[in-house]
Amino acid sequence: MMQLIADRKDIDFVLHEQFELSQLSRHEKFSDFNKTVIDMIVNEARNLAIKEILPTNSIGDKTGCSYENGRVTMPSEFKAAWYQLEKGEWFAPAQAPEWGGQGIPETLNVATQNYLFGANLSLLMVAGLNHAAGKIIETFGSDRQKKYYLKNLYSGKWSGTMVLTEAESGSNLGDLTTSATKNEDGTYCLSGNKIFISGGDHDMTENIVHLVLARIEGAPKGSRGISLFVAPKFLVNDDGSLSEQNDIVCTGIEEKMGLHGSPTCSMALGSRGKCIGTLIGKENKGLSIMFLMMNKARLMVGSQALSCASSAYLYALDYARNRIQGSVPGESGKKSIAIIQHPDIRRILLTMKMYTEGIRSLLCYIANLEDKKKLTENVADKVRYQNLIDILIPVAKGYVTDRALDVCNMAVQIFGGYGYTTEFPVEQLLRDVRITTIYEGTNGIQAMDLLGRKLFHRKKELYKNLIDEIDITLNRAKATPALEQMAQTLDNALTKLEQVVNKIDPALQDQDVLLSYAFASPFLEVTGDIVMAWMLLWRATIAQDRIENKPRKKELDFYAGQIKSAQFFIGSILPVTLGKMASIITFDGAAIEISDTSFGGK
Amino acid sequence: MMQLIADRKDIDFVLHEQFELSQLSRHEKFSDFNKTVIDMIVNEARNLAIKEILPTNSIGDKTGCSYENGRVTMPSEFKAAWYQLEKGEWFAPAQAPEWGGQGIPETLNVATQNYLFGANLSLLMVAGLNHAAGKIIETFGSDRQKKYYLKNLYSGKWSGTMVLTEAESGSNLGDLTTSATKNEDGTYCLSGNKIFISGGDHDMTENIVHLVLARIEGAPKGSRGISLFVAPKFLVNDDGSLSEQNDIVCTGIEEKMGLHGSPTCSMALGSRGKCIGTLIGKENKGLSIMFLMMNKARLMVGSQALSCASSAYLYALDYARNRIQGSVPGESGKKSIAIIQHPDIRRILLTMKMYTEGIRSLLCYIANLEDKKKLTENVADKVRYQNLIDILIPVAKGYVTDRALDVCNMAVQIFGGYGYTTEFPVEQLLRDVRITTIYEGTNGIQAMDLLGRKLFHRKKELYKNLIDEIDITLNRAKATPALEQMAQTLDNALTKLEQVVNKIDPALQDQDVLLSYAFASPFLEVTGDIVMAWMLLWRATIAQDRIENKPRKKELDFYAGQIKSAQFFIGSILPVTLGKMASIITFDGAAIEISDTSFGGK
Repeated sequence: MMQLIADRKDIDFVLHEQFELSQLSRHEKFSDFNKTVIDMIVNEARNLAIKEILPTNSIGDKTGCSYENGRVTMPSEFKAAWYQLEKGEWFAPAQAPEWGGQGIPETLNVATQNYLFGANLSLLMVAGLNHAAGKIIETFGSDRQKKYYLKNLYSGKWSGTMVLTEAESGSNLGDLTTSATKNEDGTYCLSGNKIFISGGDHDMTENIVHLVLARIEGAPKGSRGISLFVAPKFLVNDDGSLSEQNDIVCTGIEEKMGLHGSPTCSMALGSRGKCIGTLIGKENKGLSIMFLMMNKARLMVGSQALSCASSAYLYALDYARNRIQGSVPGESGKKSIAIIQHPDIRRILLTMKMYTEGIRSLLCYIANLEDKKKLTENVADKVRYQNLIDILIPVAKGYVTDRALDVCNMAVQIFGGYGYTTEFPVEQLLRDVRITTIYEGTNGIQAMDLLGRKLFHRKKELYKNLIDEIDITLNRAKATPALEQMAQTLDNALTKLEQVVNKIDPALQDQDVLLSYAFASPFLEVTGDIVMAWMLLWRATIAQDRIENKPRKKELDFYAGQIKSAQFFIGSILPVTLGKMASIITFDGAAIEISDTSFGGK
Repeated sequence: MMQLIADRKDIDFVLHEQFELSQLSRHEKFSDFNKTVIDMIVNEARNLAIKEILPTNSIGDKTGCSYENGRVTMPSEFKAAWYQLEKGEWFAPAQAPEWGGQGIPETLNVATQNYLFGANLSLLMVAGLNHAAGKIIETFGSDRQKKYYLKNLYSGKWSGTMVLTEAESGSNLGDLTTSATKNEDGTYCLSGNKIFISGGDHDMTENIVHLVLARIEGAPKGSRGISLFVAPKFLVNDDGSLSEQNDIVCTGIEEKMGLHGSPTCSMALGSRGKCIGTLIGKENKGLSIMFLMMNKARLMVGSQALSCASSAYLYALDYARNRIQGSVPGESGKKSIAIIQHPDIRRILLTMKMYTEGIRSLLCYIANLEDKKKLTENVADKVRYQNLIDILIPVAKGYVTDRALDVCNMAVQIFGGYGYTTEFPVEQLLRDVRITTIYEGTNGIQAMDLLGRKLFHRKKELYKNLIDEIDITLNRAKATPALEQMAQTLDNALTKLEQVVNKIDPALQDQDVLLSYAFASPFLEVTGDIVMAWMLLWRATIAQDRIENKPRKKELDFYAGQIKSAQFFIGSILPVTLGKMASIITFDGAAIEISDTSFGGK
């Protein structure tokens, strides 16, 4: 029986063997989460995802959303799925139970997201906004805002949105022009036009809670003058019941390459002068609030990408095992074989496997840091965990989505001509995953974040924390004879990474700042490669340990597969990474030196 | 004014400065094609493409094809475009005028294809089959077949198809089962089911000429028992008029990721026992005939991919010049700038430019070899030209389509969120170009072709011919002080390529044959990189020459852009290529060693 969406064995390995998650149950906060409970929660997510939600995925892609007179209709099959998510309390599982969450560890949350996002990304990305909007209200909202909105968001009774982007300002939120005028009762009248609002309108819930970035009249220019507001689709009476409709209306939806089941809305705020919003947090602190939420949002996009990649891998693997075609090289004319026997297909499949596994470990690692940060009282540890999260987020969003896109692309290739047809699920996965390299900050922005804000921050403290963590794995692997050589190769790559950092450091300070940024994306890529190699070697150290204890055949096969993933990455990918590092060190200036007219095209 | 589809200046540079095409007019065969005529033909293709055909491209994508009762309808807007192609004699421009061609050089044909495929890939790929089917009939057909079909194909009055693939055999044509039974009158009754037949049915033309691979009863098993037949949709009377409908019927069309305007048909042959076909060439030589046509077909797919890439580049470049967003790194809060000023965007744009240019040169180079092969009487030269074509075709199809896919992907990224919407043309280009890595032999098959059939063929004669050609450019560049360093870097990479070849050579002979094939795709990639570097350095040598003659500003900008493309590839990409070579030399066995169960997923 083929597995769907995610390889359960691998998820269990990450949760129990790599991160020993049930250890968290020694702390009071997570005392309920022993191994049995953890497994039960993964089971629930998996069953819900595969049985109830996955069947709606292709339907949603084909039906899409429709727009008429300010109202958006999502695929009707999504309603039952939404209800199941509500019933299972899947809208904010890691949040506080008092507000409708389940209080599960973030690490476990990422594992369950793998199944849920993988079942229907269109629906779950809209649903995921409930958690994001709720978290902001939980953290920065007034008691009144919490009372009226929070439980409805975390429970999935209502839904949430992020109303940020405008046509002109795009990624540069500091330039937005939507205005907010204070009313006598302390509320604000919002006015402006927004675009690319996921779930800006739909028919899944009776109300939608919009979080809106706007500029209060007279506020400072640029990013320091932006405030955050909550403006619900329907205003809420004091008793919590719905009042009249607010003046925030969907004016159209985008036709997109993928994610057809998720409405991407243009929104008009205050076209009748009556879009009522209340301030969240302090005036002019809107962007700071968004920044504080950004790590979680970006990790979630990484999770979305992983879900597409892990689904694509399993479909391609199953296809490769069953599709009979051609013969082994050098034996043409002989009996036809399953294409998994072809060396080129094996290379592609192992590449897909390796990235899927490495990404899964990385995302759970970051979530695990969040859990450990919550539990520790030690301030230095808290800082270190946060440092590691901060430096890894651009990798978890930028590098991860790029690799997930590659993996989905490879799946289409393995299916051959069939992969290009809608008869098989891989082309939808490729179209759907394509957005993840763009939204929540394009991957170019992630690269600039890593180089400009993280790498040299506090005298490279974040970077040093990262290297120290990698060293723990390296030392363990070096002490394992079967892995010693791999560990040495990774260690050499780390030395080379140090040279790259030392090349960029002075350049960023002087007139080469532009050129340095031309290498931001390559730098993100080599950092990501190193992190992948680390995660895979970490997995291999555990697997090698288990292998030496002579496990049963099925276990042995799994652990042997872990060794092969690490071996492949370190043997076949790291040499390319070294080449990428050499390219950065060359520091060729062509991209900056070329004149605008020399690009041609006129 | 932005250029559309292809940069005319660059096309002119390739035709006149890199390949000095008008020199061909010294030969009688091409005596008409002086510079003025060449430019006029490019003008015509460009005008037709941009004014008449391009407007149908997005319409075709949105409308798609429809199927009802065995009949396929293509987007109605395509009819006028087809008529314009017919009127302009664009169905087989490089073929003999006596059969309806224009007899233009292949080099020029590739240049005009850049515009035509770029205007509407769905329509032009169907139209392109006219040439392919016609060429087979011209080369292998009987006088009768030529008389009835050839002019109608080359003129575009009828259309042609290639009816090869079957559901079970897929890429492995040797396994196909469609049968052919000889009738008393010398014709054959064909019987079987075919899939993925581009243009298998449509309403563009009154008749469709199907070329069908089938197995004559009693023929040898496998690839040596396959014959090629022509079976028209409507049988043809002796006077050339249409007779009754043949028993070859479309039973459905595929829903696809892209290429929506091109019907991909399932075909039933002989379901009423009456699919009449006539043999082309000799019995059991069907696959040999197809193989002989394969180079041209694969070069054409490279051309299709180039068209998508060059369009995507120009759209992205124009967008980057006009989209105002963000400020220069290190100057945040200052005035917003066009995104082409951002280092990361410049890096992406230069990458796109460089591949588009390198690919354009490569495809024209191969076409130019075809032209030179036609003109020379020298047998050794003929062999050498053919060797170069043979070894470069896997690059021109496999490497080129992979890079074109990258370029289209980058275009979507430059457009940001807009790139994901159907409002802008880049997402369609990405979906359309995606098929080019699959059809006409997947890129994995191209890699196996390079490694298994080309590289070590005749004691590496093809490979040596290639290296000798590269050396010509290297020597010229080494003699140019401004390019000497670049030439040396490429030369070093060639030395490393030699090491790679020497690593694979013995491995292919012994028990490492499987492992060698696991590196087939990486080997294709490094070969392609070297070829790109060569093409770009070649361009740079010409450009440097011109620069030294102090051209006007606009010319200077163009030539300077050529130097920058070469500098960027050699400075920033070749180091990565060296890393890929190091990876091959490492020759890690993981992909072959991993057991099937260790891939997981069960």
